[in-house]
Amino acid sequence: MLGGVAIIGVGMAPVTSGSGKSLTDLFVEGATQAIEDAGVDRVDSMYVGNMMSGFLQNQEHLGALMATALGNEGVPSYKVEGACGSGGVAANAGVKGILSGLEGVVLVGAVEKMSGYTTPEVTSGLMMAEDKSRVGPTGVTFVGLNAMIAREYMYRYEVPHEDIAAFPALCHENALDNPKALFHKRIAVEDVLKSPLVADPLRLLDCSGICDGAAALVLTSMENARKFTDTPVEIAVSAVATDRVTLYQRPDITTFEASKKASAEAYQRAGVKPQDVDVLEVHDAFSVLGIMALEDLGFASKGSGAGLVKEGACARGGRLPTNTFGGLKARGHPVGATGVYQVLEVVQQLRGDAGETQVPGARIGMAQNIGGSGATIITHILKAP
Amino acid sequence: MLGGVAIIGVGMAPVTSGSGKSLTDLFVEGATQAIEDAGVDRVDSMYVGNMMSGFLQNQEHLGALMATALGNEGVPSYKVEGACGSGGVAANAGVKGILSGLEGVVLVGAVEKMSGYTTPEVTSGLMMAEDKSRVGPTGVTFVGLNAMIAREYMYRYEVPHEDIAAFPALCHENALDNPKALFHKRIAVEDVLKSPLVADPLRLLDCSGICDGAAALVLTSMENARKFTDTPVEIAVSAVATDRVTLYQRPDITTFEASKKASAEAYQRAGVKPQDVDVLEVHDAFSVLGIMALEDLGFASKGSGAGLVKEGACARGGRLPTNTFGGLKARGHPVGATGVYQVLEVVQQLRGDAGETQVPGARIGMAQNIGGSGATIITHILKAP
Repeated sequence: MLGGVAIIGVGMAPVTSGSGKSLTDLFVEGATQAIEDAGVDRVDSMYVGNMMSGFLQNQEHLGALMATALGNEGVPSYKVEGACGSGGVAANAGVKGILSGLEGVVLVGAVEKMSGYTTPEVTSGLMMAEDKSRVGPTGVTFVGLNAMIAREYMYRYEVPHEDIAAFPALCHENALDNPKALFHKRIAVEDVLKSPLVADPLRLLDCSGICDGAAALVLTSMENARKFTDTPVEIAVSAVATDRVTLYQRPDITTFEASKKASAEAYQRAGVKPQDVDVLEVHDAFSVLGIMALEDLGFASKGSGAGLVKEGACARGGRLPTNTFGGLKARGHPVGATGVYQVLEVVQQLRGDAGETQVPGARIGMAQNIGGSGATIITHILKAP
Repeated sequence: MLGGVAIIGVGMAPVTSGSGKSLTDLFVEGATQAIEDAGVDRVDSMYVGNMMSGFLQNQEHLGALMATALGNEGVPSYKVEGACGSGGVAANAGVKGILSGLEGVVLVGAVEKMSGYTTPEVTSGLMMAEDKSRVGPTGVTFVGLNAMIAREYMYRYEVPHEDIAAFPALCHENALDNPKALFHKRIAVEDVLKSPLVADPLRLLDCSGICDGAAALVLTSMENARKFTDTPVEIAVSAVATDRVTLYQRPDITTFEASKKASAEAYQRAGVKPQDVDVLEVHDAFSVLGIMALEDLGFASKGSGAGLVKEGACARGGRLPTNTFGGLKARGHPVGATGVYQVLEVVQQLRGDAGETQVPGARIGMAQNIGGSGATIITHILKAP
């Protein structure tokens, strides 16, 4: 095993909705930037994260397709999928590619195109993250599953909706300074509570939106990184854990065991404690998931995650700056691409390249990406150059 | 980098059509056998190969789903896709998992369920291997693309159809002795030539059929393998190459550049020459692909592959026993699972466990798996214990 893995280049398409860009357009935009940023003239292999192309675009074989589109045909390239955690697992596969010693420079790119389809089509697509044979016939939607989690969480810990709604308000505030974000509109807690009901108790502004995006990373070994850049960010750990797919198979739906498991492994292997984390990206596909993440990752006890947000700890000037680019709610959640956007944003923070969103002096960052209702969770811990 | 990767357990579901088994049923059947065969009490991670679940079953997130079904929830597990090469790329990902030093015991499983859907549905699903945005609107089918290849090959090298038809006849002969095969019926060259036309010049018996299956491998490092078995088979090399996805992007459709590239890498890294290969599995989704594989892998010059089959070299008693369990044509081609069946069959040959299909004294085996019309090709070279 090599010493560690470095990120030497990052790139992304802005998160948009209705741009008309194809999967290939989006991927090439992000990947080309990452390759230019890294200053490499070739990559040895590619890993393409995506969830829904088979269902929405009726297109698979994205590995060879994206290699062809980039003019990289020839190199090993395949698709990696873990529902909304597809970006995270693609990064995990890329890390193993480097650590295997077989690949010197690896491109990890992830892409999703959800706009241009009807809401029922996208809703059906998202349900592919659940066990369709068990849960599909009940008619519940993916938002509905998360509404069950929110209802149970609010009931069990006596947390009012207005506390949870502080999370999307935080994300929208942060996205104001991110030009690549989907939304640039300040929202207040009251706006969340007054927005249309989607699946009780979740309202429109509790939920991430339908959008398109692609993001990419160029990886190499820490040993090689200094040949390409003075500011390699280290992926100290890429940890993946799974859990039972269906909510009723779990003893407690208000905590994600896979979140605890992946983060425990990440903390242990990286030699990092929660209090060491300078910048955090969590998977707030729905407001309650952002709050639960703060707890399951060890930053707050169960039921008290919202308190961290309300007291300002998660703001950019707070002690745990969280979703500094706007998170899934406001940067946007192009589902299979999200995990790579998160890692990329942590890289920008640790390099000091985060522009208006910069957290001064950030040295250690964490990104948490979730597939399904918590059945696949990826935790990355990154360290500054 | 560790010294090498061993296969310590294999398992499979029989290839069938219309059994009614679900994706999960099939996967668990193959994976459970592999785990029992390996004698391990746990695996550290899983890689699930599959092509069409998003399109046909409207189901993704197979990583967590199959981990749950096996009672392995918790371990890292994700889906890997490379069209009809999905099984091969899943094995490639598993090899990197072991070589990364992060995973001690890895389960690679691959599954596809194609029966129970209409032929137009399956045909549309297979076209996901092509660049749909470019080629989809032309109306050509995946069989049609391969018919173009066959026509050009026959014209350029002046090879008559009856020579190519020797390949499916060979596969059906071999499958007679494989109880897990889809077809158990001897066919003659004349039967191929008289069978119904599907896409000129390809006839029904030139084409692999619609079917279901799952196969699995348990991997560990060569260093660890002897703890579990006296007969570890070494994966000497797992090599992947890609090519431009669409046929009209290539200078020559009668040879697959990715086949030459992946096999050249495999031969070089394994220290093996074509004449050293004792048992060969090639990706004969269509008869002409079997012939082309013999050439592109270095066993025959262009245009002369069929001669090898006709002279008996590819029979089990010949000098290059090929598709000894029946190949894609007769063992069956559950598309995303095929690459793992191929590796498994080579393992059985190298262990001396191949039953009636055994090639005496086989020491070195090669398996070639193809995604799309040659745009993703995986070559594995395996060595006997």
